[in-house]
This record gives sequence, C-alpha cells and structure tokens, in this order.
Amino acid sequence: MSQNAEHKSANYNLDELTQALNSGTFIQTRRMLNSLPRTEVAHMIESSPPKTRAVLWQLINSDIEGEILPHLSDEVQSQILSQMDTNEVVAAIEGLEPDDLADILQQLPNQVIREVLDSMDHQDRQRIEQVMSYPEDTAGGLMNTDVITVRPTITLDVVARYLRRHDELPEMTDNLYVVSRRDEFIGLLPLRKLLVSDPSITVREVMNTDVTPIHADVDDSEVAQLFERHDLISAPVVNTEGQLLGRITIDDVLDVIREDADHSLMSMAGLGEDEDTFSPFSKAAPRRAIWLGINLLTAFAASAVINLFQGTIDKVVALAVLMPIVASMGGVAGTQTLTVVIRGMAMGHIGSNNSGWLINRELLVGFANGLCWALVVAVVAMLWFNDTTIGAIIAAAMLINLVTAALAGAVLPLLLKKMNIDPALAGSVALTTVTDVVGFLSFLGLATLAYA
Amino acid sequence: MSQNAEHKSANYNLDELTQALNSGTFIQTRRMLNSLPRTEVAHMIESSPPKTRAVLWQLINSDIEGEILPHLSDEVQSQILSQMDTNEVVAAIEGLEPDDLADILQQLPNQVIREVLDSMDHQDRQRIEQVMSYPEDTAGGLMNTDVITVRPTITLDVVARYLRRHDELPEMTDNLYVVSRRDEFIGLLPLRKLLVSDPSITVREVMNTDVTPIHADVDDSEVAQLFERHDLISAPVVNTEGQLLGRITIDDVLDVIREDADHSLMSMAGLGEDEDTFSPFSKAAPRRAIWLGINLLTAFAASAVINLFQGTIDKVVALAVLMPIVASMGGVAGTQTLTVVIRGMAMGHIGSNNSGWLINRELLVGFANGLCWALVVAVVAMLWFNDTTIGAIIAAAMLINLVTAALAGAVLPLLLKKMNIDPALAGSVALTTVTDVVGFLSFLGLATLAYA
Repeated sequence: MSQNAEHKSANYNLDELTQALNSGTFIQTRRMLNSLPRTEVAHMIESSPPKTRAVLWQLINSDIEGEILPHLSDEVQSQILSQMDTNEVVAAIEGLEPDDLADILQQLPNQVIREVLDSMDHQDRQRIEQVMSYPEDTAGGLMNTDVITVRPTITLDVVARYLRRHDELPEMTDNLYVVSRRDEFIGLLPLRKLLVSDPSITVREVMNTDVTPIHADVDDSEVAQLFERHDLISAPVVNTEGQLLGRITIDDVLDVIREDADHSLMSMAGLGEDEDTFSPFSKAAPRRAIWLGINLLTAFAASAVINLFQGTIDKVVALAVLMPIVASMGGVAGTQTLTVVIRGMAMGHIGSNNSGWLINRELLVGFANGLCWALVVAVVAMLWFNDTTIGAIIAAAMLINLVTAALAGAVLPLLLKKMNIDPALAGSVALTTVTDVVGFLSFLGLATLAYA
Repeated sequence: MSQNAEHKSANYNLDELTQALNSGTFIQTRRMLNSLPRTEVAHMIESSPPKTRAVLWQLINSDIEGEILPHLSDEVQSQILSQMDTNEVVAAIEGLEPDDLADILQQLPNQVIREVLDSMDHQDRQRIEQVMSYPEDTAGGLMNTDVITVRPTITLDVVARYLRRHDELPEMTDNLYVVSRRDEFIGLLPLRKLLVSDPSITVREVMNTDVTPIHADVDDSEVAQLFERHDLISAPVVNTEGQLLGRITIDDVLDVIREDADHSLMSMAGLGEDEDTFSPFSKAAPRRAIWLGINLLTAFAASAVINLFQGTIDKVVALAVLMPIVASMGGVAGTQTLTVVIRGMAMGHIGSNNSGWLINRELLVGFANGLCWALVVAVVAMLWFNDTTIGAIIAAAMLINLVTAALAGAVLPLLLKKMNIDPALAGSVALTTVTDVVGFLSFLGLATLAYA
C-alpha cells in the first residue's frame, strides 16, 4: 500500500548514509545530507534510531536546521531540542513562519522562550505572541500571518501594480484578502479571478463574499473538515470582532488530517497518535506498561468470573478447553463493531438521528453471525467431546456473547463520548472486559445449570 | 477530537430533514436540500441509513446529482448508481471532471459505460478514455486534463493576455505548465511568480525547472506522499515520453491520504478502508462472518493446546482460572508492538537498516514489562490460591509470552510484507494465534512439569 519509490529512495539514502557513517566519510555524508530536500532529511531523521538521529543532526548545517524542525513530529522535535543549547535554538529557528515557530517554542522551557522572544524585533515578536496566545490545536495556533490584503475600492490594475512591488508572493497564495479600513475581513480575491478579469474594474466587483472566515478559537479537527468539505487551499482566520488575523494553509492542515486519522488506530492500542516509531526504550517501556496494567485488571475480572465456577470445571474439564473460544469470538465481533462505530464517529457520520438504526443493524449482524458460528462450534464440540449437552451450551453462550458484543461495541463508544472520555482509547479495554466477563459467565453459568 | 460545529451542523440539518420527511413537507425539504453545499449533502447521504438515503436521493434535483456523486465513497456511490437507470446516469454525470467521471464509470456495467461514452463528443471521450486507461489507484487515474499550458519562448505579457481570454481559470490552478512544441513537460510557471515579475521577460526566464513530473503509472499512495513531502497543491502527470497528460490536485490527493490512513485501522479488524458506516445488514453480515470464521480457527488452535493439558487442569483447577490472564496480556502487548510497526511501515519509516534496532527495542520492552507485571501477577496468584508454585509458574509463563508477543508483533508484519500479504489485515489474526498458543502452552506446560 504505502511502500513506494519515495520511501525506497529515503531508505536507500538512509542505507547509503549508514554505510557512509560507518566507513567514516563524514564530509561526503554531510554534503549529501545538506543537499537533500528538507522534508526528505526530516523523513530520514524520523526513520532513525536515537543514536543515528543524534549523528544526523550533528551533520546538518546549522543554517538549515530551522527548515527541518517543522517537518518533524512533536515527539522527535522535543527530543532534538532537548539536546541543543539556547543559542543553537535561537539560531536555528530564526526566520521560521509564526505557526511553526509557535509549535517549537511550546516545547521549550519558559526561560528559553523568553530569550528567543527577546532576540526578535518588535513586529515579529508581536506576531508570534499572537499565534502563541491560541492553543496549538486551534485555528489560531495553525495560522500564519503572511497574508496579502487589499481594499475593496481599488481597481485590479492597482492590485497588479501593488503585487509587482513584492519580490515574491508567499507560498500557497491562492487568494488575496479583502479587508476594510478597520481590518475587518470582507472577502477573497482569488488570483485565478484576478488574472482573467478586466484590469479597470474594482476589487469589490470581482471578490468572493460567500466565504465564512474561520474563528481563531475553532478546533483544528474542525478546520481540517472545512478544508476537506470545501476543497480549500487556504482560509482566512478572524477574531471575535471579525478582524483578519492571518490564514491557514493546506500544508498545515494535512498534518492535522493525518494525526486525526491515526488517532483511532493508535488509541485503540493505548498509544499516542504522534508516537515516535523509534522512541528509545526508556520512553516506550513505561507508557506501554501502564496500558498493560489497565488490561491486567480486566483480565483479573475475567478470572474472578471463572473462579466462581471452579466446581463445574472440576466436574467437566472440557469446559476449560472450550471456554476461551466463546470469549475470544465475542472480542473479535465486538472489535469489528467498535471499529466501525469509532471511525463513523471520527468522520462525523453518527448522530442522535441514526445511532438507533446503527445499533439495530449491529444487533442483527451479531445475532445472525452468532447463530451461524454457534452451530459450527456446537457440531465441532459435540464431535470432539462426544457430548451433546456441551454443544448446546457453547452454542447458546456464543449467541449470547456475540449479541452482547454487538451491543457493547455500538453503545460503549457513544456512552464514553457523552462522558467526554475518548472512545478510541477507552473503548477497546471496556469492550474486552464485557466480552470476557459475559463470555465466561454465560458459558460456565449455563454449564453449571446443565451439569448440576 | 472530531465532533465539531461542521458535523453538528450536518447532523442538525439531518435532524431537521428527518423531521421534515416525517411530517411530509417534501417541497420545503427539497428546497433546503438543493440549496446546501454539495459536500454537505454528500455528508448527509453518507450519514444516513439506506432508506433515508434513497429518499434523499429522490429529493435531489437531477441537475446537481452529478456534483454530489464524486463526494461519496465508492461503496455509497455504487449503491446509489445501482438504483438509477442508464438515462439518469448519463444525465447526472454530464460535465463531470475526467477523474471523477472515470471513478464513477468504473462502477457501472460495461454496457452502460459504452452508452455513456457514445453520448459524449469526440474530445471529451478521448479525455475520459485516457484517464480510464490507467487504474483508479495510480497517478493516471487521479489526474484531470484541465491544464493551462504555455510555451517557454513567449513573454509574461503575452501570457497575461492569453489568460484574460479565459472566462475563468480551473479551480486549484496554482501553476501554468510550460511545454515544448511536442507537448513535453519543461517546467512550471507559478501564478505567484507571474504576478510579481516584469511583464517583458519570457516564460523561460522565470519558470521552475527543478520539478520532477509524476509518471502516470505511479501508485496513488506514492503520489500522496510526494504531495505531503513537497507541500504541493498540484503536480504535472506525464507519460513515458515525458509528454504532459494532465495534473493532479490536492483535493483528490486528500481522499487518498485519508483512505491510506484508515487502511490500518480498518484492516486490523478485518474491514475495508472505505467501509460504509451504514451499509445494509445484507452486506455487513457476510463480510464480518468471514472474519469471525478465520478467528474461530485460531480459537480452536488455542483450545487444542489446552486440550493437551486436561489432566493437569483436572488436578489443579486454579490453572483454568488463571490461564486466560497469560494469553490476554500477551495479546495486548503484541497488539501494541504490531500497531507501532504497522503504522511505522505505512509511514515509510521502517526499512532493512533500522528494523533490527526496532525488533531489539521491542524485545527489551517486552522483557521489562513482562518482568514487571509477572511479579505483580505472581504475588496476586500466590495470595489468591495460597500456592507459591502457581505464582512462580504464572510469572514465568507471562514473561515468556510477553517476549514472544514482542517478537511476533515486530517480525510478523515484516514477514507478511515480504510475502506480499497485507500486514494490517493478516497481522492481528496471526499475532493472536501466536500469543494464545504460546500463552496456554507455556503456562499449562510449566504447570504440568511442576505438578507432575
């Protein structure tokens, strides 16, 4: 799916680099590294274990360090920043865009932030302080201040002459921003309209006004969805007074989209969405240990249920052989439902008007598949242990557990969300607890009744 | 994370719509529906159970159906198309962009495709046939042919006059494409450069030539990574002769990025990445049943292992109570490793040069956390059953299984990939089989030795 030439080339470069590092040809390596595209270097750093990472960073010229930092994930960024002294940090991040700079500053100790801000000129400091006044995961935290603004009353000819006074327009400039005298956002002047229109007409006559600017407080996931729904390349950001603060561009939104999409996958395994693949043992182990500890509690809960039925197992030891089947099938079926619902929620598909239908369908699917595989398991169990009763018991337990799994898989994430708990993180633990407990309880409980 | 105002508004609209439908005010509903942004309507359709979906589609004016179809997922598209007759389809898809049209045509029976193509004029047919000659998941399948080309020898002033002859430039036009007399791609002329440059100089003097065009055969995931790495809005697509065929724009790439990111999450639960949240029972049930069947086989494998130790369980029934803990903790630890590795692979982080380091770290983490929780479990088991031996046994089994889980979680996806099997799909089943079998085998095996 995702192995491809780019990756191969990155890994090829990395192979070459590893060789070069091992053979000690540092000069050559340094030259190669500094001539690669910055995003490629960032990818190589992300793809390296900690020690190689440190060596790579040493080999990168200090004047391009700042261009590489924004392309690294937060975790890798902070790892690298922690190994630099304040002067190096100040030198590296000079000239970065306000949103990138704000992201990096937020990872540094307060004293370093102070020093960096003091080293800037007044206007730059004001800009960065404005971006930093919004949380990282809001429109304000995502925005840049590199907007080109025009007044509605001037002609396109004047706009064209004004633009020609620039050496270069900022990257990803698809629109000029039309603002009032008081900096209130009025509309957009797309370059692709400017270029085809009669130069003698005014901005007001061609500008787009059916654009809703994004408020600086809006959540970054919402910004991402706006970009996706409306095929945006950039979007204006305003304050509560409607004044233009800056713009958000699609390159920064892509990171949000990827992190949001990774969130469900990683959270379901108790991991963070920006988990560093090559995080050192000392960081990886404690994080994972906590997740294992939580799961251990649920495993003990299941054991406590089994413990209630020691007598029955003692009588019919075949029950111990078969009982994991019921629990495991419940876990698998429940995880399918849970995954569908969590992804549906993440995509904004599920609301109060359709969750009922969804729960019903899941119950039906659970019942139908429960019935289907219950019969298969029953036949196998009967033949295996030459015991009709055990077949009937496992079939009934399987059906009960698969219906329960469907219900839990569909309802738990909705409930957790209402309680403001991340369903992707808590859902899978909660689900396994339910399917284990119900699986063992129904199977061993029915057996106790049958073999009493 | 992802619940937000946009969603709320979509669901709010959907609530209103449901009410309107129920109260039978169709005219009002129809008016509202047809005035909403197309992407919003598509989102409402995706968020509806099958029956509501059919009603919604009936209420949509036929002249905007074509604008909504491209925003639907493949599965929902084909569901809706299957309910339309050929004339309706032909009317709906008139005027769509070639890439969207090709996607939709590929879902139709051959005879309908023929009819649609016959209904087009020569040039349009040629364009669409060109896009359809490439698989949907390649650069050729993603591209559109709405490029504006210029020659390197003309002046920017001539370019400006040429552009003014257009009523409108295509959406997402950030660059003009510079081609030779034989349509070979030479370079890009960014609008943001055109606007700031002296009108009297030639295209050749300002164009970007350090752009590598994308070959039409390139995989769509690779295209997505190129866009992400190089912050592209659009990119040229060429054939093997280097001739410009069309361009790919970021809006189409976003869908690829989202699907790729969803792939791991969905596949690990045996689901497709474009699974329709509201697929009808008749579609959802059989798909899930297959996955359950595969998992049933692995559950039977675990039971077969337990079956070997019936005698030991008969002697010490506490073993039956504790044995699921060992298997379950192995499954959880292994899933964590598996998730980290599968995501690392999807992001192109893992190659031959760093997989060794990764496996080592995972083994270390597995050993450390195995040791940590083995001690906890041992103490609990000893106190619970007042039996030192059982504590020692479960601790040893836990350690063995967590190290095995780490090894399996790291190595299985790498192996599966080498065998060209999707690691996200097959990895979790293979992993659970290993952790269940090794969990029961080590725990019950050690117990058999101890209690012999």
